[in-house]
Amino acid sequence: MNAPTPLTRLVPEIHQREVPAALIAALKTHFGERCSTALVVREQHGRDESSFQAPPPAAVVFAESTADVALAVALAAEHAVPVIPFGVGSSLEGHLLAVQGGISIDVSRMNKVLHIHAEDLTVTVQPGVTRKQLNEEIKSTGLFFPIDPGADASLGGMAATRASGTNAVRYGTMRENVLALEVVTANGSVIRTGTRARKSSAGYDLTRLFVGSEGTLGVITEVTLRLYPLPEAISAAVCSFPSIEAAVRSTIQIIQLGIPIARVELIDANTVRMVNAHSKLGLREEPMLLMEFHGSPTGVKEQAEQVQDIASEHGGNAFEWASTPEERTRLWTARHNAYFAAVQSRPGCRAISTDTCVPISRLADCLIDSVAEADASGLPYFLVGHVGDGNFHFGYLLDPNDPRERATAEALNHKLVARALALEGTCTGEHGVGLHKMGFLVDEAGVGAVDMMRTLKRALDPGNIMNPGKIFSMPG
Amino acid sequence: MNAPTPLTRLVPEIHQREVPAALIAALKTHFGERCSTALVVREQHGRDESSFQAPPPAAVVFAESTADVALAVALAAEHAVPVIPFGVGSSLEGHLLAVQGGISIDVSRMNKVLHIHAEDLTVTVQPGVTRKQLNEEIKSTGLFFPIDPGADASLGGMAATRASGTNAVRYGTMRENVLALEVVTANGSVIRTGTRARKSSAGYDLTRLFVGSEGTLGVITEVTLRLYPLPEAISAAVCSFPSIEAAVRSTIQIIQLGIPIARVELIDANTVRMVNAHSKLGLREEPMLLMEFHGSPTGVKEQAEQVQDIASEHGGNAFEWASTPEERTRLWTARHNAYFAAVQSRPGCRAISTDTCVPISRLADCLIDSVAEADASGLPYFLVGHVGDGNFHFGYLLDPNDPRERATAEALNHKLVARALALEGTCTGEHGVGLHKMGFLVDEAGVGAVDMMRTLKRALDPGNIMNPGKIFSMPG
Repeated sequence: MNAPTPLTRLVPEIHQREVPAALIAALKTHFGERCSTALVVREQHGRDESSFQAPPPAAVVFAESTADVALAVALAAEHAVPVIPFGVGSSLEGHLLAVQGGISIDVSRMNKVLHIHAEDLTVTVQPGVTRKQLNEEIKSTGLFFPIDPGADASLGGMAATRASGTNAVRYGTMRENVLALEVVTANGSVIRTGTRARKSSAGYDLTRLFVGSEGTLGVITEVTLRLYPLPEAISAAVCSFPSIEAAVRSTIQIIQLGIPIARVELIDANTVRMVNAHSKLGLREEPMLLMEFHGSPTGVKEQAEQVQDIASEHGGNAFEWASTPEERTRLWTARHNAYFAAVQSRPGCRAISTDTCVPISRLADCLIDSVAEADASGLPYFLVGHVGDGNFHFGYLLDPNDPRERATAEALNHKLVARALALEGTCTGEHGVGLHKMGFLVDEAGVGAVDMMRTLKRALDPGNIMNPGKIFSMPG
Repeated sequence: MNAPTPLTRLVPEIHQREVPAALIAALKTHFGERCSTALVVREQHGRDESSFQAPPPAAVVFAESTADVALAVALAAEHAVPVIPFGVGSSLEGHLLAVQGGISIDVSRMNKVLHIHAEDLTVTVQPGVTRKQLNEEIKSTGLFFPIDPGADASLGGMAATRASGTNAVRYGTMRENVLALEVVTANGSVIRTGTRARKSSAGYDLTRLFVGSEGTLGVITEVTLRLYPLPEAISAAVCSFPSIEAAVRSTIQIIQLGIPIARVELIDANTVRMVNAHSKLGLREEPMLLMEFHGSPTGVKEQAEQVQDIASEHGGNAFEWASTPEERTRLWTARHNAYFAAVQSRPGCRAISTDTCVPISRLADCLIDSVAEADASGLPYFLVGHVGDGNFHFGYLLDPNDPRERATAEALNHKLVARALALEGTCTGEHGVGLHKMGFLVDEAGVGAVDMMRTLKRALDPGNIMNPGKIFSMPG
């Protein structure tokens, strides 16, 4: 047995719609070599960082402009063929899989930073610009874009999945930081949502309707984002704790007191062991918090002192501080390499990542029981978390050829999600629903709310061609 | 001539739909005395703080529960009769007017604070709870709800108009601070959107679709909000400037430097004169900024010093500081009484308020030219602004019996909006579209985006019964 649990268990409506030769011919006519039907290209665009599998799209169009995207969508609409937008392929829940066939529109060549308005703390980019590229290109302005989901994701993709990451506790998520969008709709027309004003009450919030819509309502072709002044002072610290609970209780207190911490990341002892093995860091193999403080020199000092007091009360020790960029990079290595270190700790394994997020006071309850369950399962795992937001990820490391391990991981995830929902949390803090969490979404939002999402989808995409089969099923 | 400019100039589709006697009878049967058809009650529910006029609703239902709202909406839906939610009646753009007839659902008796989760910094309230009531009821928790639009508005109404106000520069608007909603939809069913988790990627952002939808998609029956720890230290200051431009340029620099100021309000010299006359404050009759700083004692001191330096560079003088609650209240009197002082400065007048918001670097350009135009018009006016967000309000004080003054005010507003849109801003930062800005919305968002809003409205409210005739027209 070579494939993981069949996708059909998760996506009842999977079926490949026909892609007429006439559409491929039209795309080739218009896009020439920028429309590829080579298997290797199609396969590369038919998967993401999830462990799902589906046949690849029938063709890949490399768009270089909004007009390209609009044309490709209009042609696809004419032939009632699905369209799947592709950025860098870093999504985690099967968002990019052509479960109903169709064509992939790759926007990675739409990678220009279009307008830097440093004086307004805004920037407008094409969707293929990655977050690292953006921060590189705006370096000279003294501003930065804080949202850091780990992967060097495209900003279009980050908007489409409502991504966040390590800095969200202070700076918010894509929900808070996208000011405006340009979108190609399901009939190939182009609309703009929002303006560069910081706030607005001008009609329905179309911007936030598209942020998090996972390509199911349209293709994002421009993103206007908020930027922030680089803090005058940045200080980072790691602190080890006698238990996950102690680390989490410290975090809860930091948040409840309103300390404006910029990052507070949990790394469990498993992960520290894996990262030590991978990167020779020699870190204490105990649960730890990685923290970062942004502000004025005195503000940072004050925050750091408060946090040190809180951590000490919970048995935190071995505070290690870093103020220069180089020292900070070294400390953050543990967090940034966690995923790869974990995957390499079990050669040939695949990681299945959970993504629950709960109100901060419920975090300890949610985590402790789930850790006990994971330990009891015998499945190797790592645990990292944006704990300041109540969001954390178990990464279950499973043998993709062993369906029992897959089943164990899915069972653990089910219990975790059920627990998070009972604690008034969400099944996905930042990864999105994709294919994997369609059932969980119904548990979380209720049939009525999911039906409302279907109604919106039907209204904006009557032919169900925009990344169909994701977020929810569309019966009939 | 007794009426202001006829409403029909603004709302081409105004027409009163029939309200069948059978509906009124059914409402009376179910709600007894809580369904009123007394003219005085209907008239009170048929207007808001705008200067528009329309015939009152046919009946007012005083809802006391979500079930009441659901029942009233279901009955109205059965008879294809419009439904207009009513909180405290403080909206400014004609949101509450029964321009197509129908019934008003008054939620002011749904005024319970349902769940205070101080440990999570969240609270869930019924829609009739006002912001002052909320802050009173959570006082003992050490937390507060920062959004302050001036009026003691209901939180349901604030969500429905995506309100903000003086603290938004630091804490965001209702867009950022509503975590979850309960909503009665157009067919009388009840859905929940969102959870109490701080962030989520679980499907379409229904919460933000309803925030700012002005009652046109459903009736909000519960609101879950973010709270914040009361700052350890609060300090307020007023500072006078030789010109509006100097005050605005100071503000721009404060924002560009990322100083986390909690409030920065502009008050022009006209307004200071009016407030002095009204409240005997003896303030220097020059443009001034009112500012507030939240943080630790040292943080507040640091911010204040930075701001003082910036203000001095722009000729700011006569800094007056306040740290105790009593002193702060005195300083803020000028801002809080501005509207009433202005209206009383011209007995019998009505104020028409503008609400443009522009990117911060464009604020001086937008304001200075508009001030010159207002001065040249000869119409009395006051000018206040949440300038840290690029948002400001001219209040033109006009004789409601003089159509020329109305025309002058509308012409000034048109020029102002055109200028704000050219500067990449919005026609409404926080008041909403209502009846007054339907034309501006098309100018701002474009026909395509407004058509998308119509499509969403049609999908969620096929009978067009939820507060019809607001935000956009619905042809056919």
